[in-house]
Amino acid sequence: MIRTLYHGWLSPFSREVRIVLGEKGLDFDMVVEKVWERRPEFLAMNPTGEVPVLVETEGQVLSGAGVICEFLDESHPKDTLIGSDLLVRAETRRLRDWFGVKFYTEVTRNLVDEKLYKQFMGMGAPDSVAIRAGHENLGPNLAYISYLTERRRWLAGENFSLADVAAAAQLSCLDYMDDIPWPEVPAAKDWYARVKSRPSFQPLLEDLIPGLKPPKHYKNLDF
Amino acid sequence: MIRTLYHGWLSPFSREVRIVLGEKGLDFDMVVEKVWERRPEFLAMNPTGEVPVLVETEGQVLSGAGVICEFLDESHPKDTLIGSDLLVRAETRRLRDWFGVKFYTEVTRNLVDEKLYKQFMGMGAPDSVAIRAGHENLGPNLAYISYLTERRRWLAGENFSLADVAAAAQLSCLDYMDDIPWPEVPAAKDWYARVKSRPSFQPLLEDLIPGLKPPKHYKNLDF
Repeated sequence: MIRTLYHGWLSPFSREVRIVLGEKGLDFDMVVEKVWERRPEFLAMNPTGEVPVLVETEGQVLSGAGVICEFLDESHPKDTLIGSDLLVRAETRRLRDWFGVKFYTEVTRNLVDEKLYKQFMGMGAPDSVAIRAGHENLGPNLAYISYLTERRRWLAGENFSLADVAAAAQLSCLDYMDDIPWPEVPAAKDWYARVKSRPSFQPLLEDLIPGLKPPKHYKNLDF
Repeated sequence: MIRTLYHGWLSPFSREVRIVLGEKGLDFDMVVEKVWERRPEFLAMNPTGEVPVLVETEGQVLSGAGVICEFLDESHPKDTLIGSDLLVRAETRRLRDWFGVKFYTEVTRNLVDEKLYKQFMGMGAPDSVAIRAGHENLGPNLAYISYLTERRRWLAGENFSLADVAAAAQLSCLDYMDDIPWPEVPAAKDWYARVKSRPSFQPLLEDLIPGLKPPKHYKNLDF
């Protein structure tokens, strides 16, 4: 059977998995899962009720971006995205968690979830306190990306890794909503342009969410 | 130099690392870090400002329970706590995240942080809505532990793993506050008794937080 990814629109965690599948050159189908419907068949695959869920070619079910990405890197170890040196692996995972947990909680959830999901689900206007907090927290995080990339080729070291994948997946969702002040953060922008030019990233730039157009620069590699 | 763990009182994440260090038979010193003081030297080691932070024998600095435990398992691979089979490894990590992220957010933070840290920091009475949410979320999570341990020897499969470590670390903090209705959940209690009897767990049972005594059964292996 063909590998299938259950994902969500502008779900940064689904995007992490899509990039890693692309980096590893693996074929897969995608199915949009409307998580708020809480389908029993989906809950049976992942009791948390969240995307992403990956069903592998032999039917094995995996859930959670961090778990799936580690699994894909271990099952396709060529060109590792975690690193071989133990300290590089720890640094990669530290930054993966930074963007996948801390950045998501402080920024992406406040901006993307507030604006996008409330609109889709008819839950009323976005919470202005959350939106303000999201923008305020974005600044120091973009500065941290600049800080790291001024000292290293990629976020966790010399090689492109799950840290870059996690950070770019989050930023790509914010960028779709035109929430990133690129001119103010040239080093972060330079790093993001390099991620954006990777073949694994192209499918994300083709995403079109019904009723919500991205800004012109979203697809542009030279933004 | 001696390995040093910067930890916090009733910090479930610090406890995860303490158990793993014990399982691996590694010597270490412990230093209580009052994270709310935001010491510059500590922030330089971990910009998130959170415990645990582990300084290794050659001065390498690691932060975050998940990151540190993976590092310790990779650097001391004998008797792996993650597993060798790729799907077991994924299941271990799924459950580590379940307890380290979801359970912590839904339960431990609402109960332990509300009651303990507000008291220490003179932040007033605990928020009764948070306390109620914590207790309500605890039930389904204890039921999930029972469900898993009725089907498997340990949470992620046949072997004791980081999943058991993460779950028991969270529960031990709640148990110190006498927040677990053990008589109602015999299967979860049986599993916890088995974790509690491991030598790596004994130091946690000796913890005494100034001004806050644990219930009598906290230390008792036959509770």
